[in-house]
Amino acid sequence: MARLLRSATWELFPWRGYCSQKAKGELCRDFVEALKAVVGGSHVSTAAVVREQHGRDESVHRCEPPDAVVWPQNVEQGGVCVNLTHMDRILELNQEDFSVVVEPGVTRKALNAHLRDSGLWFPVDPGADASLCGMAATGASGTNAVRYGTMRDNVLNLEVVLPDGRLLHTAGRGRHFRKSAAGYNLTGLFVGSEGTLGLITATTLRLHPAPEATVAATCAFPSVQAAVDSTVHILQAAVPVARIEFLDEVMMDACNRYSKLNCLVAPTLFLEFHGSQQALEEQLQRTEEIVQQNGASDFSWAKEAEERSRLWTARHNAWYAALATRPGCKGYSTDVCVPISRLPEIVVQTKEDLNASGLTGSIVGHVGDGNFHCILLVNPDDAEELGRVKAFAEQLGRRALALHGTCTGEHGIGMGKRQLLQEEVGAVGVETMRQLKAVLDPQGLMNPGKVL
Amino acid sequence: MARLLRSATWELFPWRGYCSQKAKGELCRDFVEALKAVVGGSHVSTAAVVREQHGRDESVHRCEPPDAVVWPQNVEQGGVCVNLTHMDRILELNQEDFSVVVEPGVTRKALNAHLRDSGLWFPVDPGADASLCGMAATGASGTNAVRYGTMRDNVLNLEVVLPDGRLLHTAGRGRHFRKSAAGYNLTGLFVGSEGTLGLITATTLRLHPAPEATVAATCAFPSVQAAVDSTVHILQAAVPVARIEFLDEVMMDACNRYSKLNCLVAPTLFLEFHGSQQALEEQLQRTEEIVQQNGASDFSWAKEAEERSRLWTARHNAWYAALATRPGCKGYSTDVCVPISRLPEIVVQTKEDLNASGLTGSIVGHVGDGNFHCILLVNPDDAEELGRVKAFAEQLGRRALALHGTCTGEHGIGMGKRQLLQEEVGAVGVETMRQLKAVLDPQGLMNPGKVL
Ligand SMILES: Cc1cc2nc3c(=O)[nH]c(=O)nc-3n(C[C@H](O)[C@H](O)[C@H](O)COP(=O)(O)OP(=O)(O)OC[C@H]3O[C@@H](n4cnc5c(N)ncnc54)[C@H](O)[C@@H]3O)c2cc1C
Ligand SMILES: Cc1cc2nc3c(=O)[nH]c(=O)nc-3n(C[C@H](O)[C@H](O)[C@H](O)COP(=O)(O)OP(=O)(O)OC[C@H]3O[C@@H](n4cnc5c(N)ncnc54)[C@H](O)[C@@H]3O)c2cc1C
Repeated sequence: MARLLRSATWELFPWRGYCSQKAKGELCRDFVEALKAVVGGSHVSTAAVVREQHGRDESVHRCEPPDAVVWPQNVEQGGVCVNLTHMDRILELNQEDFSVVVEPGVTRKALNAHLRDSGLWFPVDPGADASLCGMAATGASGTNAVRYGTMRDNVLNLEVVLPDGRLLHTAGRGRHFRKSAAGYNLTGLFVGSEGTLGLITATTLRLHPAPEATVAATCAFPSVQAAVDSTVHILQAAVPVARIEFLDEVMMDACNRYSKLNCLVAPTLFLEFHGSQQALEEQLQRTEEIVQQNGASDFSWAKEAEERSRLWTARHNAWYAALATRPGCKGYSTDVCVPISRLPEIVVQTKEDLNASGLTGSIVGHVGDGNFHCILLVNPDDAEELGRVKAFAEQLGRRALALHGTCTGEHGIGMGKRQLLQEEVGAVGVETMRQLKAVLDPQGLMNPGKVL
Repeated sequence: MARLLRSATWELFPWRGYCSQKAKGELCRDFVEALKAVVGGSHVSTAAVVREQHGRDESVHRCEPPDAVVWPQNVEQGGVCVNLTHMDRILELNQEDFSVVVEPGVTRKALNAHLRDSGLWFPVDPGADASLCGMAATGASGTNAVRYGTMRDNVLNLEVVLPDGRLLHTAGRGRHFRKSAAGYNLTGLFVGSEGTLGLITATTLRLHPAPEATVAATCAFPSVQAAVDSTVHILQAAVPVARIEFLDEVMMDACNRYSKLNCLVAPTLFLEFHGSQQALEEQLQRTEEIVQQNGASDFSWAKEAEERSRLWTARHNAWYAALATRPGCKGYSTDVCVPISRLPEIVVQTKEDLNASGLTGSIVGHVGDGNFHCILLVNPDDAEELGRVKAFAEQLGRRALALHGTCTGEHGIGMGKRQLLQEEVGAVGVETMRQLKAVLDPQGLMNPGKVL
């Protein structure tokens, strides 16, 4: 990236100014030539199909294609809409220090496949096989966060191309220590900044010892309240549960169909425990006691790797299972997170609202963190329905805020939650964020309009 | 604070400008009157003894008394050299959510005393009974960090009076959720900022379930290498050790004398394990195997609370034990932290350098984090010796940097490590920090000269 961002062309003709004369969706030829001169002709594309592919994600948001797509080959190149997937090396594995350095093209699954025989793994798991640098950019978390933390806890260092092309190593070049008090925590500032402060070109991650033994479990509950209460009790009993996921009966039904599971159609917890054989026994016993006190039935352990994998694949495909229940529709996911003691009331209330709303939706969530998603299905061409979905999501966000929670536990602010961010962190909070953005990206080049 | 920082007096007569006519160490009367008008006459002092008390710490640095000391009574008051110890309320304990909100006058021990019957505790433990907001300001860690993380991992929210008097809640007012992806991580930016970005007037902390059972242990080793190797092996075996502290034979001898212990004078590990009875057995057994493979002798368990407390009090008094070996001298502590695989070589090398240097010193450290302190004793009136001590510390800092480590694992940059910070994070890193400082404190009012 650095070369393009630093280049005179870039300085003299910054993106938006340079192309002001362009027709909608069409990029002036000189600029494309300038891009090609840096990265090579075959690494720039203005083809409609390519541009559309880069303007779309899993959300209901309208496709907003960039005007050109550029694939830099190394950190010295770059610019504009930058697709970093060609930079896909695992640069350095420090097995004894439990750390690894990866480029942006390396995904979570690719890293864990690489680590398979090392006795180590990277636990942060949003289900989707996202790029690790993208996960750092969005501050992702997912099913293992209750035990291993989120990206905020597992990024040790970042290499960032700043908007003016300078290369920043947030913790110093090549460093991968466990803790530091050396000046401002720049790593923490860039994790979760959603691409608005710079391009992450490498990330140093903390690895964890692969668990000696693993057991998964599912259990069904008579009510949403009973399932969520169990979660709170398990945490309060300090059981070091590795995963604790809630699926309401609608989602459980969808997963049964989509992933050929055979679970009771009821509010359900999927759990996982990591540890030595002996430690597992103890965790399982305590958990079983707690869920039984809360009226759980249909309790079943999954000890074999294959069985566990089937379960978690089903959980991670919950989004697609939900989509399959109403073909042709798009999904819209809420993402609130509240203090754990408020979780039962907000989930129960949300379930009631959902039933009353006439919308199609289900609930699934990382309840161990107080975080859950309501996945609403919507016909994107039906403006009225889309409006009701957005109103529902906003109301849920406000309810979480009223309970001292956050409007986004892991998905980020993007464009859709800028108003809720204001309400969450207050005017001084947003002004402070704006000051940081303004000083680090004074021309507003990086992901303009996002977050703030 | 807010009122004073915002007041017209403050705006029109910022600290350094207003008092430019003052004689050294003497503050112009009008300004003192202005301070008294805000906080009340009995809460401002210009007495030499009080000013000196506030210009001194445990370090060798010369006493630099402020010109006045002000004790605000609430968050609306404040200014200049601000002593926050009168704001000492525990504002809110959320037992079910494992969180607490404390004012700056609340110390670590006061909080844990308050929590005694709640089944919860706050584990970050730098030994010293520091204020929790001060610990947040310095990004403190200490003996439990290997298991529970540092202040960076345990601060959920901060209330900060910004340099212009506005009140910031870094995660939004009253919020105390487990995770969030809502905009830039302001909490992370202020933790460890050493008072250079604003005054922390309340901090929300993450609490942990009090361990069901606790066992401590000490064991002596034939060499420094053997003790540090054991540490690395224990971590690599994923034993969830709660504390693992190294003392070299000089420090062990000093602690025996100062705290009336009876340990073998040899390189020693102090360990602690937390968990259920059953989990402890397993941890102890694995640890014993590992240390025995490394030639440990004089292994002894401390299972009774009283015995453990004696051990950790001795460990936490290590600084004073070292001082007692050379009365009249001051202590000078280094604070490097390296990737765990490099720990044996740097500790062994440091020990050799220390022996060769002719300086008086000993080694003690949080080796589970790769962090250790070399405590050097120096006659502060002997400029030549002080020079040699500083040169030794700087050389050690550079050695840690060369091993991909940091010059400060937990004590911070302050004034003494500004040059090393440059070398650690590079020119772009320091420029980025400067940009953050400049935008958040444009007049340079907060702890001028510190960190940058
Ligand atoms: C089915 C599904 C389930 C999911 N479940 C979860 C979940 O349980 N928990 C969770 O936390 N998340 C979840 N997610 C979200 C997922 O974590 C994010 O999509 C992912 O982290 C983003 O990485 P990416 O590589 O896909 O980035 P992209 O989608 O390419 O980009 C996402 C954002 O990050 C920025 N960005 C990406 N890479 C960089 C970079 N190198 N430098 C700077 N900015 C960059 C982009 O500009 C964009 O703003 C889910 C997503 C899907 C599709
Ligand atoms: C004997 C001894 C042993 C120690 N061992 C360890 C150890 O093992 N691990 C470790 O991490 N640390 C250790 N320390 C350092 C200790 O953690 C710090 O002294 C402590 O965290 C600072 O808190 P304080 O209340 O003493 O702050 P002070 O000493 O009053 O201030 C320290 C700095 O923080 C700033 N500050 C303080 N309060 C605020 C606030 N409310 N808002 C903004 N800025 C503020 C001050 O301006 C100053 O720059 C040790 C200290 C001693 C004396």
